[in-house]
Amino acid sequence: MSIEQAIDRFLQRHTEDVLVAVSGGRDSMALLHALVSRNTYLDRRVIICHVNHMLRGEESDADQEFVEQSALHLVDGVLSANIDVGMMDGSMESNARDVRYAFFAECAKHENIKDIVLAHHADDQAETVLYNLLRGSSQLKGMKEFSEREVDGVMLKLHRPLLEVSRAEVDTYIIRHGIEYREDSSNAQPVAVRNRLRNEALPLLDDIMQRDVSGRINECMKMAEEDDRWIASGIDASDYIDPQGRLFLPKLKVMHVSVLRRVFKNYLTDNCVVGVSSKLIEQAMNLIDSEQSAKVNLPGGGQICRKEKRIFIKQ
Amino acid sequence: MSIEQAIDRFLQRHTEDVLVAVSGGRDSMALLHALVSRNTYLDRRVIICHVNHMLRGEESDADQEFVEQSALHLVDGVLSANIDVGMMDGSMESNARDVRYAFFAECAKHENIKDIVLAHHADDQAETVLYNLLRGSSQLKGMKEFSEREVDGVMLKLHRPLLEVSRAEVDTYIIRHGIEYREDSSNAQPVAVRNRLRNEALPLLDDIMQRDVSGRINECMKMAEEDDRWIASGIDASDYIDPQGRLFLPKLKVMHVSVLRRVFKNYLTDNCVVGVSSKLIEQAMNLIDSEQSAKVNLPGGGQICRKEKRIFIKQ
Repeated sequence: MSIEQAIDRFLQRHTEDVLVAVSGGRDSMALLHALVSRNTYLDRRVIICHVNHMLRGEESDADQEFVEQSALHLVDGVLSANIDVGMMDGSMESNARDVRYAFFAECAKHENIKDIVLAHHADDQAETVLYNLLRGSSQLKGMKEFSEREVDGVMLKLHRPLLEVSRAEVDTYIIRHGIEYREDSSNAQPVAVRNRLRNEALPLLDDIMQRDVSGRINECMKMAEEDDRWIASGIDASDYIDPQGRLFLPKLKVMHVSVLRRVFKNYLTDNCVVGVSSKLIEQAMNLIDSEQSAKVNLPGGGQICRKEKRIFIKQ
Repeated sequence: MSIEQAIDRFLQRHTEDVLVAVSGGRDSMALLHALVSRNTYLDRRVIICHVNHMLRGEESDADQEFVEQSALHLVDGVLSANIDVGMMDGSMESNARDVRYAFFAECAKHENIKDIVLAHHADDQAETVLYNLLRGSSQLKGMKEFSEREVDGVMLKLHRPLLEVSRAEVDTYIIRHGIEYREDSSNAQPVAVRNRLRNEALPLLDDIMQRDVSGRINECMKMAEEDDRWIASGIDASDYIDPQGRLFLPKLKVMHVSVLRRVFKNYLTDNCVVGVSSKLIEQAMNLIDSEQSAKVNLPGGGQICRKEKRIFIKQ
């Protein structure tokens, strides 16, 4: 799909004002250009959000200046933040993401716009699916075209209209419109797992298979998600949850493993358990078998336990 | 799982005489050793089948001699064939496979043994799943521990008891028992797609993810296959096939896409259509929409057509 088609489809379906996350890189500058130039009725406000993570010194500052300078005349406003992620503990990647979302929430309150448009494209999607598959997330899972995320009391609405647009289409668009952008030098560094999947693994797989494997991975992911929704649609919690909100064992014992896996996933997430991995789900499912241990520790504290004919969470 | 555990499980479940496919390489020599040494009651015949594909000149002949010499005293017979695959048209890999299966069928008739044990292990399985994912087979799909295949009028029963045994476990077993084997030099050649996935892509992914990705890929594949079986179990052909064996359109129109995909897959394979890819299934599904074309050509000749309220195959 071309960027033009993708953005037209988005603008037809979505008529609210939007925030756009713009790093100054190729993908987000193409997104911004398309959003602004195809928003022909000028009937909605477009506001840029840019986070300077201050990870690359002068280069980061120059990115920020570039975004502010080059895009200001196109949009209704540019909101920027300087946040020194390098000074924080923990994983750089997840800190940078948390900081970005916290800033989006701030922008959402400030502008009273909860819709945020992100520039992830089809090749990012394939990278995400491969990453989820290999790290142990459940099956083939990617980003959603639309999702919601609560951050600091704001329910952000996240839109990714370019998920079906390949990186090659983005390149074509950039060249056709002579769009300027900044190269993020950290994308080329083989430090982070995601960078290595993008720069080493996917190109190698393309070369071995002599085709664009990203498109193929995304097709399979979509089929897996359709299967997931279909199986989930046949599940009715009132069938197996007792009035006290506990899982009723005799009902679980007659379920197919595919249904059971989703019942446990729903039960754990509905009860606000954090870090629900497929490994945790398998462990919790083992509680059904009375020959196995009667409790499993949960990552955020507390346990999921079996007692008589019930399985439940104990804090 | 260790080789010993895997073979004990196989021997408990399976009490018939067996043919064993032995190339002389590491995996098949380990399989053979385990089968013979754990078959403690000597209550079943074990016959080796070895195909000399004559692709590597003297090296191939030496493999054959190695298998015959080193294994003859262990088993009840060695059957070998010399077939010059290099002289045949078409893909070398698929020719070699066809030739192997034709020879297995010959052995099966000769010995009146239809059960064949193959040495594919967990790393081969992950390679197969990745290959199927990337080439466009439907979703995550691997080899089966047990499958049947009709070749030249014989229904071969194929057993792969080592599918949950990693290559590292095979290495451990080879060292522990001092088993001799022959290196197949063609495994190291970067010619074939499968060799490159095995020797380049999977090691790179292990390195990037800092874990054994094969185990992870196989877990996801198993979950996907369970989902597939669960969805398939809810499908009843009498719901949507008319007395003349045609698909009844009004029933198809109310089906979820996940069910529909399997209905079309079953319909095409039940009607002996060859080369049923996920692309062909999608094209056939488009017949439901009366705005689209009313026929789709099938790979082996004939068409699948929509006419009034029916979809059917026309030769």
